[in-house]
Amino acid sequence: MSHLLQILLLLSLVIAAAKLAGAAATRIGQPAVFGELLVGLILGPTVLNVLSWPSFTTAPTEGFGAAPVPLLGLVNDLADVGVILLMLVAGLETDLDQMRHVGKTAFWSAVGGVALPMASGILTAVAFGMPVFWTGIFVGTILTATSVSISAQVLMELGVLRSKVGATILGAAVIDDVLGLIVLSVVVAFAQASGGGSTLQVLAIVGRMLLFFTGAILVGRYFERILAWGDGLGVSQGLLATVTLLAFVYAWAAEYVGGVAAITGSYLAGVLLTRTSFKKRIDDGVHPLTYSILVPVFFISIGLRANGRELGPHGAFTVVLLLVAVVGKIIGCGALARICGFSNRESVRVGIGMISRGEVGLIVAGYGLSHSVIGLDVFSAAVIMVLATTMITPPLLRLAYPQVAKRPQVAVEEAFTAIPAEVHDAVGSASPHSGHSAQGGRR
Amino acid sequence: MSHLLQILLLLSLVIAAAKLAGAAATRIGQPAVFGELLVGLILGPTVLNVLSWPSFTTAPTEGFGAAPVPLLGLVNDLADVGVILLMLVAGLETDLDQMRHVGKTAFWSAVGGVALPMASGILTAVAFGMPVFWTGIFVGTILTATSVSISAQVLMELGVLRSKVGATILGAAVIDDVLGLIVLSVVVAFAQASGGGSTLQVLAIVGRMLLFFTGAILVGRYFERILAWGDGLGVSQGLLATVTLLAFVYAWAAEYVGGVAAITGSYLAGVLLTRTSFKKRIDDGVHPLTYSILVPVFFISIGLRANGRELGPHGAFTVVLLLVAVVGKIIGCGALARICGFSNRESVRVGIGMISRGEVGLIVAGYGLSHSVIGLDVFSAAVIMVLATTMITPPLLRLAYPQVAKRPQVAVEEAFTAIPAEVHDAVGSASPHSGHSAQGGRR
Repeated sequence: MSHLLQILLLLSLVIAAAKLAGAAATRIGQPAVFGELLVGLILGPTVLNVLSWPSFTTAPTEGFGAAPVPLLGLVNDLADVGVILLMLVAGLETDLDQMRHVGKTAFWSAVGGVALPMASGILTAVAFGMPVFWTGIFVGTILTATSVSISAQVLMELGVLRSKVGATILGAAVIDDVLGLIVLSVVVAFAQASGGGSTLQVLAIVGRMLLFFTGAILVGRYFERILAWGDGLGVSQGLLATVTLLAFVYAWAAEYVGGVAAITGSYLAGVLLTRTSFKKRIDDGVHPLTYSILVPVFFISIGLRANGRELGPHGAFTVVLLLVAVVGKIIGCGALARICGFSNRESVRVGIGMISRGEVGLIVAGYGLSHSVIGLDVFSAAVIMVLATTMITPPLLRLAYPQVAKRPQVAVEEAFTAIPAEVHDAVGSASPHSGHSAQGGRR
Repeated sequence: MSHLLQILLLLSLVIAAAKLAGAAATRIGQPAVFGELLVGLILGPTVLNVLSWPSFTTAPTEGFGAAPVPLLGLVNDLADVGVILLMLVAGLETDLDQMRHVGKTAFWSAVGGVALPMASGILTAVAFGMPVFWTGIFVGTILTATSVSISAQVLMELGVLRSKVGATILGAAVIDDVLGLIVLSVVVAFAQASGGGSTLQVLAIVGRMLLFFTGAILVGRYFERILAWGDGLGVSQGLLATVTLLAFVYAWAAEYVGGVAAITGSYLAGVLLTRTSFKKRIDDGVHPLTYSILVPVFFISIGLRANGRELGPHGAFTVVLLLVAVVGKIIGCGALARICGFSNRESVRVGIGMISRGEVGLIVAGYGLSHSVIGLDVFSAAVIMVLATTMITPPLLRLAYPQVAKRPQVAVEEAFTAIPAEVHDAVGSASPHSGHSAQGGRR
């Protein structure tokens, strides 16, 4: 089978599996994303390992242009682009006034969610006989950074992203990203034991972040004009092309200029786009193909990359690390949200929304492994921890929102209209923006 | 720069370049796709060779999961998916009644457009001192297959895809695909000189094509039910995911089962989807991200793959081959359209719409090269011929439709409403379907 046919077959399989699993998950009262993650795990090396099937491994028969791309590499690339667009959508769904309102809580939740996992990670490592310097500190650092894309998706599905809790989780995740980076850079600067220059290095990193965020917000003021210009270019989909371009450039700049995660950049672009007059048209344009191809590829790819069979001989350490990862965020974020005045239920929701870890944890673990600070056992445990926290976040968040338990799940974009007052009342903060209801007819 | 950042930067560059070049082209009265092809050529190895710039070649800094994908390979893969979706859109824009109406003309145009280029290709080879068997016959075969995606895009931009001429070109392209394949298989079967079994081989190939087309049309009868089911799944973008899945599966089956081009499959899926009650929603959903990311990548990728500097020492042969390729289609398709009752102007338009060659020509050339039937000189000439026919089709088609010369180009999807009666009148066959006008406000 030629390379193109393999791609078409794989994309067909991914889309079909994701949507069917998503539908099945909603039938049993779970977020669709839970089903998509689970089916990815089944398709991946853990169970079926589809990418090793003959259809996907036979040598491509044609040979023009560049060498064919490995399929897993292609899936990963599409997934990376998918999660950039997913966070753009999450940004578009964000209620900026609500987020300003909960800014303080978000900040302290993020601090608690960095400090407690860091401390308990160090203790866990020590309990398993590892030295504090630097193995313990690396284990702690691995546990700090939240990856909010899965939570954002679940909150959108539940229709509560614009609520007080939703805004806190998203806000805390951005701050967490910044804090996690500072922690990481401090740790790396000191671990390199170069001695001199570490303070300067850390200052440089903070300076880069400031540069990115300031620049991004300043440019955001011209979004209305930029979009109007792109829309008036007279080319097909000028508006959407401009939006996509902004999301990609912001994602690029977030990592290249600011040193923070690329998804933070596209999320920020989405937030800034909510203030333009084009918001409704952007929503209508971004959702369809994003959610029919790229986002399913992202969800499935998580399972395809993972190998649940690798739990191996270090089971005890892995299980404890996972528990610490989960409990550390729930208590770390939750306690500080509670101190800032959230109710018990709201605080637990914030904590749960911050559980899932992602790329940053893996990057820290990879750095530690390649510099022999941690061993392959800790690295494997970290990979499983990232996967497991990602998998359990959707059902846990679902549990934390029992109010919507009795009704079937609906499409993300309909959630805001289809799940009406009861939810918003339940979380104690109905969004003042009812503009979203206007989108009821769209799918 | 990490692999993801390279992807984001490259996609940003591609989208910005494509849309700006498209806008510039429309300002000078050319189809947007002409500008996009031209800027791709400029970005590619012919002029700037951006993919060799340090930003895109520095070794990726991270190393998790699969090895990073070469960027050109990724662009080619995205382009391949993009052209599948482009042909889905072309299928959705097709007027099936109109196509039935022009079926006979389309068939004979296709026959003329295969026979004349085949014959003149052989003569050209002989004139340059090559043997008829098999070099000459391979040169002829290289010239037979039309690649209609660029013409489809231009016809959509001009708002005449649903006209008599547009339907004839698209119909002839599908038939041409089938005829080209038969010619190719006959030539290959005989060239292999295995003697026995060649007739059986050819019969098997015709059987596979029949199997695909029959199956595809039969399954198409259930599209309404399949879409209703997907739409009712309760997952995000269930309808669009189902449409994408159908397009991918049809594209896969076209090549894998039927042996015809994958784009013929997605085009057929699009045509069959026009008869469902979901057509309007499909249109609204498929256009935005397709035309903001994937289709621009396709147009740009043509230039990125090409290298105009390789014209080299065989300039005379290349120039003659190109002339024969262009004139062969214009006269071959045009003359038979004229005989079937089309006016002179309509016949020329059909001929021009069939000029551009694509993958199939390259595949034949590659086969000939790897089996030493043709030399590297003929192969390079074929590559340049494919590129040049692709580049000149948009401006030539534009010339053939002077009626729309005075007004600025508009977005593809608006063309049907924005270019009103005069065009349809001019081509003598206003579409009976005015349903399209309802989409005026969308972009």
